[in-house]
Amino acid sequence: MIKDVVRTSSVMQQWALDEKRSGRRIGFVPTMGCLHSGHLSLMKLAGEHADRVVVSLFVNPIQFLPGEDHARYPRPVESDVALCREAGVDMVFHPEESCFYASGHSVYVEETVLSQGLCGASRPGHFRGVTTVVAKLFNIVLPDVAVFGQKDAQQARIIQRMVKDLNFPVEIILGPIVREPDGLAMSSRNRYLSQTERRDALCLFHALEEARKLVARGERSWQPIRAAMAAVIADSNSARVDYIECVDDSTLQPVSSLETPVLLALAVWVGSTRLIDNVVILPP
Amino acid sequence: MIKDVVRTSSVMQQWALDEKRSGRRIGFVPTMGCLHSGHLSLMKLAGEHADRVVVSLFVNPIQFLPGEDHARYPRPVESDVALCREAGVDMVFHPEESCFYASGHSVYVEETVLSQGLCGASRPGHFRGVTTVVAKLFNIVLPDVAVFGQKDAQQARIIQRMVKDLNFPVEIILGPIVREPDGLAMSSRNRYLSQTERRDALCLFHALEEARKLVARGERSWQPIRAAMAAVIADSNSARVDYIECVDDSTLQPVSSLETPVLLALAVWVGSTRLIDNVVILPP
Repeated sequence: MIKDVVRTSSVMQQWALDEKRSGRRIGFVPTMGCLHSGHLSLMKLAGEHADRVVVSLFVNPIQFLPGEDHARYPRPVESDVALCREAGVDMVFHPEESCFYASGHSVYVEETVLSQGLCGASRPGHFRGVTTVVAKLFNIVLPDVAVFGQKDAQQARIIQRMVKDLNFPVEIILGPIVREPDGLAMSSRNRYLSQTERRDALCLFHALEEARKLVARGERSWQPIRAAMAAVIADSNSARVDYIECVDDSTLQPVSSLETPVLLALAVWVGSTRLIDNVVILPP
Repeated sequence: MIKDVVRTSSVMQQWALDEKRSGRRIGFVPTMGCLHSGHLSLMKLAGEHADRVVVSLFVNPIQFLPGEDHARYPRPVESDVALCREAGVDMVFHPEESCFYASGHSVYVEETVLSQGLCGASRPGHFRGVTTVVAKLFNIVLPDVAVFGQKDAQQARIIQRMVKDLNFPVEIILGPIVREPDGLAMSSRNRYLSQTERRDALCLFHALEEARKLVARGERSWQPIRAAMAAVIADSNSARVDYIECVDDSTLQPVSSLETPVLLALAVWVGSTRLIDNVVILPP
């Protein structure tokens, strides 16, 4: 049962310090709110690894680029809190947007290699915003374990690298992508889609399925797989490729043939909504 | 009494976690070793605010620029450990230089405003190395309180900003500059000085004394004070000014008249050794 919704970093941190002094393990799911079944699956995972589960709801301004959807990103806080309550979350941290970053804020956490390609290339500065907010949240919530979604695969790899490089005493667990019955990856941004766009948005999943089929048939060369995926996207009127890439799953460096575990990731504009999806392929 | 000298981050972190679970407060003094009375005064301060005192000895490679003294920086580890023992330190963390930064390290903590002037202008990248290593050490040693020297005034302000901006649950305490009987600020680099240079090195202290006298006589304009300080440095054969600056003590922005609390800081090359010193002046 939710004891409270905390809006102040110092109050949240004091709660966390008290819980830890009492010997309890804290599990943490950082979110931007607008919760869906994907988030709920992460909360469930957190609960399996901790005595207390904290969820943060914060639309982090510094991970949005100028012109992106920061202002209109949905903030259905009341229903989010209700969903957390139903999910058995112990504490919701919903910081005030105006004071989470102190006046004169000038310190950032930056990953300099894994963040260069994929979404980092399309959204320069995005991952600096992500690592900075996650470092802050880790220091405020003091989790023993934090759960991130595989949906944001590049973000997950970057956070794992940050934890390793900066020695955060936090275990990172990744939750699998949760999909709608027809295959569309759950995303808070899906609610931006019109009816037609919602149908077209399936092209991301279909492109990944197409890739999977080709690999199952023995294709190991990336170029024909990429071409087949691009053809699937091209079939959808409102869709436009941002990137379709095949990278080594740990280094995130592009590969031209699928011999090691690879991350097959794509970002597609559907109308004015940018969607991402991915699959990890372990060639047999 | 020192129980051990720990060389592995994971072992150090586990010790810290155990101490904290037992309800003990950890005080921390990060150093590059080559300890002197200045460091010992910081350990004493740490002991007054904590149940356990940890000292780190680590010549952090990423805060040295190419061509600086990283390789020849003195590493008298045995006598450093003996000094820690005498000072009542509970744990010495002396990480292996070869594995403190994991292979493929790519995450950095960067302060973007306070680090631009003063030593940051002369040593670009230096403070990124400092904030990164201190963030790592904070996550490994998990201190409740950490003590830094006012000698490195800009570093201290940057660390305070980092703690605030990234919400580290750490209280920062600053220890005053400790000086040799003749006024020279204690520094591990003083041992680089020849006999002549050791005499010339006093010019930093004398320049600051000259400034203090002028302010006491009512001077509030920075330019004549700076000129008087530069004249003191010019009187020493082996000395060459790197910078002499007067900045607001909290923003570190240059000021032209001494009305608010100011930090009067200078860096001077004495032979091939770069020394720094400073004083905070609160105009009456």
